[in-house]
Amino acid sequence: MKTVFINGLGLIGATMARIIKAANPATTIIAFDPKQENITTMVDDGVVASAVDFETGAKQADLIILATPVSGICSSLRQLAELDLKSGVLVTDVGSSKETILAAAEPLMNRGVQFLGGHPMAGSHLTGSKNSRLDLFANHSFFLVNGNASPATIKEYQALLAPGQLHFSSLTAKQHDQLVSATSHLPHMVAFALTNTIIPEVDDMAIDPGIPSGGLLDTTRIAKADPDMWTAIFTSERADLLAQIDQFQKQLTRLRTAIAVDDQDSIHDQLQAANEARLRLEEKR
Amino acid sequence: MKTVFINGLGLIGATMARIIKAANPATTIIAFDPKQENITTMVDDGVVASAVDFETGAKQADLIILATPVSGICSSLRQLAELDLKSGVLVTDVGSSKETILAAAEPLMNRGVQFLGGHPMAGSHLTGSKNSRLDLFANHSFFLVNGNASPATIKEYQALLAPGQLHFSSLTAKQHDQLVSATSHLPHMVAFALTNTIIPEVDDMAIDPGIPSGGLLDTTRIAKADPDMWTAIFTSERADLLAQIDQFQKQLTRLRTAIAVDDQDSIHDQLQAANEARLRLEEKR
Repeated sequence: MKTVFINGLGLIGATMARIIKAANPATTIIAFDPKQENITTMVDDGVVASAVDFETGAKQADLIILATPVSGICSSLRQLAELDLKSGVLVTDVGSSKETILAAAEPLMNRGVQFLGGHPMAGSHLTGSKNSRLDLFANHSFFLVNGNASPATIKEYQALLAPGQLHFSSLTAKQHDQLVSATSHLPHMVAFALTNTIIPEVDDMAIDPGIPSGGLLDTTRIAKADPDMWTAIFTSERADLLAQIDQFQKQLTRLRTAIAVDDQDSIHDQLQAANEARLRLEEKR
Repeated sequence: MKTVFINGLGLIGATMARIIKAANPATTIIAFDPKQENITTMVDDGVVASAVDFETGAKQADLIILATPVSGICSSLRQLAELDLKSGVLVTDVGSSKETILAAAEPLMNRGVQFLGGHPMAGSHLTGSKNSRLDLFANHSFFLVNGNASPATIKEYQALLAPGQLHFSSLTAKQHDQLVSATSHLPHMVAFALTNTIIPEVDDMAIDPGIPSGGLLDTTRIAKADPDMWTAIFTSERADLLAQIDQFQKQLTRLRTAIAVDDQDSIHDQLQAANEARLRLEEKR
């Protein structure tokens, strides 16, 4: 019988708990979270057995899932390197960046403890265990960035997550961070900036702007993302993100210039390229 | 019995035809379109009676709807100013910009012919009458930018469009163009540039990027827009659009700078503002 300790029972940690409990109801899941309501919801739902402090949970666990913000994951990893953990334990996480986390896991791995980085692309702006759902990650990507876990251990972990209906991809930490920066962090940044451009301007016009169009809603939807979470992401991912912004600025300038000089061929080429690329993207869903 | 002439039987013109026919089945709708298939679909559906050339259609009509791209609408208006139209005719359009169109309508209006600018915010990247639907504009905005039509004429026109379930807003040409530039043209530009930033970069990584997240799909969705239509829009709306891009660049730089210097308060303020503004936007739908 497996004991799983989850540190952080927010949206992601709690969803991981639901998935694991569904895969193996005999699993004992214990957890820590500073918010009592996060614990209560999951205990009431029969998913989490009880709340424990970090050290107690870590020492009892066959599987440790670190599900706090990235900075918390890094300090947890350094803390774990000092503890006597169960032999054969797997330590994993669900953090949105991997280079810093893999680096923080070095002391732990040097002690012979298995570490496997993980990252479910959850795509929800909701927070808290009360919003967790078994199917939150269904048909979403779950990136695996391995430290030193054996192939057998990784397979076992994937099996435990099977009810989540995840699409697993294995990447290096560097590939992961670049990919997430481009496909998640940059779009969020753009949505925030676009929203802060458009809405105040329209408010100032003091007219009836009518029903917001689908295009306006779509391009700004992820500006609903949680400001706390995204301030943390933007300040921990700086190097990758700034590089992405610069690339985006290049494309924006390219299109702006073509418009300014009325280069219709260039405008059309750029729009055609985007159109085709976006249609190809859809085929993957 | 009313005769309606629609010049341009693409997605928008054909949808207008369906709405009008639903409002008053006794209406005779005649139309011109260079693509035979656009005409055939609507004749087969019993919405359009027959195809006619521009002059013939214009002279027979009690209501003329100009539904070609903006440059075509402008030349149609100049052409109409030279024709003998029916007394009491209303000339209107569905073009996506209004300042140039209202200016092009001056000679016509100077002859005493009523002109009312119109613009349904259709929000579809599809084209052609085969994709037209009675409910295409349902719960969407329809902007009215009046030239010289009487209140009674405007009311009558709105009644004719009642089956479309539109949300009418009346604006000046300047307000309209600024609003559409901010809420439609800028988001499209950003989506095109963002798509051209992300997709080629991910392709170059030569990895399994997994399932595209909702955020990536949402922020780039309108990059599926038709390149021909949007090249035309970008080259006809240049002044407004360049101003909008510059405003967006300011917000982007504001956020980039805060990230680069690790000003967490500023980052959080900007994200919080965007979050609140975007939630307010949702209340209007």
